[in-house]
Amino acid sequence: MSQSKPSETLESIPKSVVERLSLYLREIQILVREGQKTISSHKLGKRLGLSDAQVRKDLAYFGQFGYPGIGYRCDQLVAEIRKILGTDQIWSVALVGCGNLGQALLGYQGFQTQGFSIELAFDANPQTVGRRFRQISVRPMEAFEADIRRSKILLAILAVPAEAAQAVADRMVSAGVSGILNFAPVTLTLPNVVGVVSVDLATKLEQLAFTVVNELRKE
Amino acid sequence: MSQSKPSETLESIPKSVVERLSLYLREIQILVREGQKTISSHKLGKRLGLSDAQVRKDLAYFGQFGYPGIGYRCDQLVAEIRKILGTDQIWSVALVGCGNLGQALLGYQGFQTQGFSIELAFDANPQTVGRRFRQISVRPMEAFEADIRRSKILLAILAVPAEAAQAVADRMVSAGVSGILNFAPVTLTLPNVVGVVSVDLATKLEQLAFTVVNELRKE
Repeated sequence: MSQSKPSETLESIPKSVVERLSLYLREIQILVREGQKTISSHKLGKRLGLSDAQVRKDLAYFGQFGYPGIGYRCDQLVAEIRKILGTDQIWSVALVGCGNLGQALLGYQGFQTQGFSIELAFDANPQTVGRRFRQISVRPMEAFEADIRRSKILLAILAVPAEAAQAVADRMVSAGVSGILNFAPVTLTLPNVVGVVSVDLATKLEQLAFTVVNELRKE
Repeated sequence: MSQSKPSETLESIPKSVVERLSLYLREIQILVREGQKTISSHKLGKRLGLSDAQVRKDLAYFGQFGYPGIGYRCDQLVAEIRKILGTDQIWSVALVGCGNLGQALLGYQGFQTQGFSIELAFDANPQTVGRRFRQISVRPMEAFEADIRRSKILLAILAVPAEAAQAVADRMVSAGVSGILNFAPVTLTLPNVVGVVSVDLATKLEQLAFTVVNELRKE
């Protein structure tokens, strides 16, 4: 019954569905660690505050993974979701910007667990170049293009100040990077084929403020 | 023509709409800095890769903000969105966990610009307690409940290791915090009235991997 769809059909999948795939993956990984073998869409949804119909609909974009009367086999669903996301392989990642945020990212356990390994780190500050964080020796920006091309790295993390972000992103693209995780609070203008996911932390606080204000307004 | 809806109707607004409100706000703030007075839904959408219909539909959840033949007045729309989000006031925020990530957050300019001010910082490590980052002196966890109650802080940022996250979140809730920005890679179990927004950075890389893999599969 477990069957993935061919990748040509993956074009028009809403971003929110892909985000939920990560949530499902994270939750089922916890279940696997707890020794659980199977999970129903109802129980999986309940753990995440989603309906069972939503869970089934999201997964149906990618194929047929459930077994009637059993639900999903946890191990198998982890493998399938990783395959869909492309994290059934380890991705080498380059980090640009080794300030506090960059250093925090170098130590972020969640990356390694999910299949991402920061292999190269760069900084523009001569005082930071050459320092070692978690086995990674910080390289100068002058070496960026050559290092990226040699290592064939496709994913990069942008953790530089806002004013430097666009210029560094342009350099990433010309060096062959095709996906950028952007922490700078700016909108990057880049070719369409380059994937950009921006982390705007103030946005997250705004969502919280909205929730809290609406709870208060109800009282 | 500019008219907000009463807050009772704000219940069932999709999370993705609230997220886009932040995007609109950020983009219009840039326009204001550039000296632009008005913007059409078409141009605003184009800057963000959205259709003009989407922009109008999102804003229509909250009221009628456009002027026929003119579009939106930038200043006014900034004020309206801030009012909707609840960021027409400055929010005091407490930070728990002053490792690299916590220190990066203490220096994150985007918070202050958008109306969030980290006023209190806590850490469990005696070596970190008493250190000063950006005018903030790190307080011991023993002082947490009393400090939070005295300052009436409602928003808190959780930047502690995964294994400590649930226990600290429970303490936040009993001290009166009603919104938690969670950076720990765990699913928190908390009362429904508490807002939780989790930042799972690996999820963001997974979204990128998905995009990059599907671009590669197309080739």
